[in-house]
Amino acid sequence: MATANRGSVLTSQNTDFPRWYQEVLDKAELADNGPVRGTMVIRPYGYSLWERVQAEIDTRIKLTGAENVYLPLFIPESYLKREAQHVEGFSPELAVVTHAGGKALPEPLVVRPTSETVFGEFMSKWVQSHRDLPLLLNQWANVVRWELRPRLFLRTTEFLWQEGHTAHATVEDAAAYTLRIHLDVYRDFLQNVLRLPVLVGVKTARERFAGAINTMSCEVMMGDGKALQMATSHELGQNFAKAFDITYTDAAGQRQHCWTTSWGSSTRIIGGLIMGHGDDHGLVIPPRLAPIQAVVLAVKGEEHVLDAARRLTDELTRAGVRARVDLRTDQGFGRRVTDWELKGVPVRIEIGPRDVANGEVSVIRRDTRAKVTIPAAQATTTVAQLLDTVQADLYESANRRLTSRMVETESLEEAREAARSGFARIPWKILGLQGERALAEDAISVRCLQTTDGAVPQDPDAADVVAVVGRSY
Amino acid sequence: MATANRGSVLTSQNTDFPRWYQEVLDKAELADNGPVRGTMVIRPYGYSLWERVQAEIDTRIKLTGAENVYLPLFIPESYLKREAQHVEGFSPELAVVTHAGGKALPEPLVVRPTSETVFGEFMSKWVQSHRDLPLLLNQWANVVRWELRPRLFLRTTEFLWQEGHTAHATVEDAAAYTLRIHLDVYRDFLQNVLRLPVLVGVKTARERFAGAINTMSCEVMMGDGKALQMATSHELGQNFAKAFDITYTDAAGQRQHCWTTSWGSSTRIIGGLIMGHGDDHGLVIPPRLAPIQAVVLAVKGEEHVLDAARRLTDELTRAGVRARVDLRTDQGFGRRVTDWELKGVPVRIEIGPRDVANGEVSVIRRDTRAKVTIPAAQATTTVAQLLDTVQADLYESANRRLTSRMVETESLEEAREAARSGFARIPWKILGLQGERALAEDAISVRCLQTTDGAVPQDPDAADVVAVVGRSY
Repeated sequence: MATANRGSVLTSQNTDFPRWYQEVLDKAELADNGPVRGTMVIRPYGYSLWERVQAEIDTRIKLTGAENVYLPLFIPESYLKREAQHVEGFSPELAVVTHAGGKALPEPLVVRPTSETVFGEFMSKWVQSHRDLPLLLNQWANVVRWELRPRLFLRTTEFLWQEGHTAHATVEDAAAYTLRIHLDVYRDFLQNVLRLPVLVGVKTARERFAGAINTMSCEVMMGDGKALQMATSHELGQNFAKAFDITYTDAAGQRQHCWTTSWGSSTRIIGGLIMGHGDDHGLVIPPRLAPIQAVVLAVKGEEHVLDAARRLTDELTRAGVRARVDLRTDQGFGRRVTDWELKGVPVRIEIGPRDVANGEVSVIRRDTRAKVTIPAAQATTTVAQLLDTVQADLYESANRRLTSRMVETESLEEAREAARSGFARIPWKILGLQGERALAEDAISVRCLQTTDGAVPQDPDAADVVAVVGRSY
Repeated sequence: MATANRGSVLTSQNTDFPRWYQEVLDKAELADNGPVRGTMVIRPYGYSLWERVQAEIDTRIKLTGAENVYLPLFIPESYLKREAQHVEGFSPELAVVTHAGGKALPEPLVVRPTSETVFGEFMSKWVQSHRDLPLLLNQWANVVRWELRPRLFLRTTEFLWQEGHTAHATVEDAAAYTLRIHLDVYRDFLQNVLRLPVLVGVKTARERFAGAINTMSCEVMMGDGKALQMATSHELGQNFAKAFDITYTDAAGQRQHCWTTSWGSSTRIIGGLIMGHGDDHGLVIPPRLAPIQAVVLAVKGEEHVLDAARRLTDELTRAGVRARVDLRTDQGFGRRVTDWELKGVPVRIEIGPRDVANGEVSVIRRDTRAKVTIPAAQATTTVAQLLDTVQADLYESANRRLTSRMVETESLEEAREAARSGFARIPWKILGLQGERALAEDAISVRCLQTTDGAVPQDPDAADVVAVVGRSY
């Protein structure tokens, strides 16, 4: 297995997956470590991926009726104490401002680890009558949680995310909305844009968000068989509304506590994209997400070759393809090819002097690296079709990996064994709380509870519920 | 002048402009004060304005070739000391993190007042050869500067902004790029989208950004005759490159220092929108920027009225108008009209039972409040045309105010007098450094230096250069 990675500038995934990951970040120019430990400098190519992730998720959030707001970075320390259960989980992670404006502050300020408490405070103010419900809010912002073992995009002291917070009149409305966010925003984006098969389900009591009555997650298998939790959605019951006094007057004139929800996703998604599709040659980006869908390389610097490359790029752009031309013929051709492979651009078109003479171009898809030579006149049509094909195929290949590394098991021992290299599914009534604790000793966790056919269970204690177990990031 | 503001829920601008501003923020549901003094909660309607501002500016920045990045919130205190001139300007404004992860930190961390020093550090790393130039970067982020006299959107402890930082091989390229950003990004957005007449020019030595060799600004007259600086662009010469060792190897193999620039705009633009177009009835939003361009009000709750309102809204949406329907007929009609006026929606359409019977609708433009009754069948065409008309007229009315309150003067005394209620233009050779100092004692400043015909001067010391002076926010 652990062979040298011939023809690539990267350590092979099989040799050392974490090292491969770090090298991709660096060589595809995605991100650098910031000057403060655990912080991240997101470089232009990495940020262009995040901008597209953001736009896709934001559009879906708005379709559910939620609106964006912006709440302050600084939170008075006293705010966090209101929700004791919550702050206990966070306090070792907090960064605290004690001085500002040249003086010691009378009360320390916490740099938001989430804006949850500020949402609570203002939702309490904004909700008065049943007419104000549902109140559907979302925020895109940076948050800070001190990390002892940081890893770029996966776990950083500062990260970018969205956090949604909503208030509803009934438990049913809160539950339905949370499920809608989970499936129509997160799962839809991850499956249809990012092309990663998503396991949806609910968290066990052990893994549930503090203060939630139900936590749903999107779990995705990475290239090394480990799970990455790529989004979570919580029903908070009336716990949060009681802590922050979020109440409304119902149609009969009675004060009632709201039912609230919260849900989030972050720059961790970029980590999932890298590890979910990447291979020994670098990133592999699904065409619908790709900032650059097709790159046209002039092989040599003759003017008619450069011209042909420019013309094809213009034609692709007019056809709606996000195309880029590479005319850097003063640099080695092999190195330029390696660079575009590292960056995971879905389709590469190469044009050399002989191609121009023959009226041909070469078209290479990044995922399989298969190359075809076709008449130049068909290039735009071929590329457009190929982008659709790659978008479809990426899901299939990720799904094959998931299927081949997910084992149906009937005992704790089988599940433990399967989780060495992938996921195991095991009936929850067989595993139970005791089995969950036993697996935790081997750093194996229940990623989620599902129905046998992979849906979010209505009743997590039903007889046919299965636990998906695995190692995780 | 100071009369009651009949028919409005707001204090009149003439009575108390600052109070009018605060009431608009509150009643149009734009923003609230955050829990920490000087911080801001941007509410959904306010944030939807910012999202549209951001999208317009971001598109223009990308057209100049710049790419977005994200740099960390926290900066080691030692970084800021590298550029002594710079830190001196900032230190009383800094917020400092001294504790994190449950412990005192070995070195305090500054919450970025700008990311300038981190850009410096990483540009030094990313620029090696002349082939890496120009390096054109931009960042959208929150920044913190402790404010003693905060005012929402205009001057807040935390604000949202973009900061661009670029490195060039020659002084000419740096100057040309800065001018391009200033005119094609900022002025174009402010004039053509926001519809505010912009005075462009260079800052005097006294007003120039610390470390810059040239600072350009966009100055806009607000409803009270005061100036708001809505964007600035700086040529930094080689000062910044020397402080951060940003060098490149030229074609001859020699190490050279780069020429750098920086430029920024912020949520202050929302303050400028409010004070630049708002009137005694609230916000007035230019149609191209407006999140909601037309609102259709059902006057009464009969089903056929609600149906007609819904149908017209759908028709407007299909015609590309950002339309919203208001069916809240359980609330008073007058109150709903007041709300939409406060929110500055450019066009309002009212449909009542008699209108449906007559096959008519009423169309009201927000800026002039003029009302016409037209056949319902023409509503979509009329609204689309009216949006264009309003977009054009808003500039004209803002420009009339500017023209009527800007006086050509020939002496310090005349300029001082004119600056009581607006701007004065005075030849810079008459005013000079001494005159500038004298005006400063009356809180009047030189907003910018222009050529007589209002262009950015090539040589600020040329004989025909004029100073624009006024009071400012």
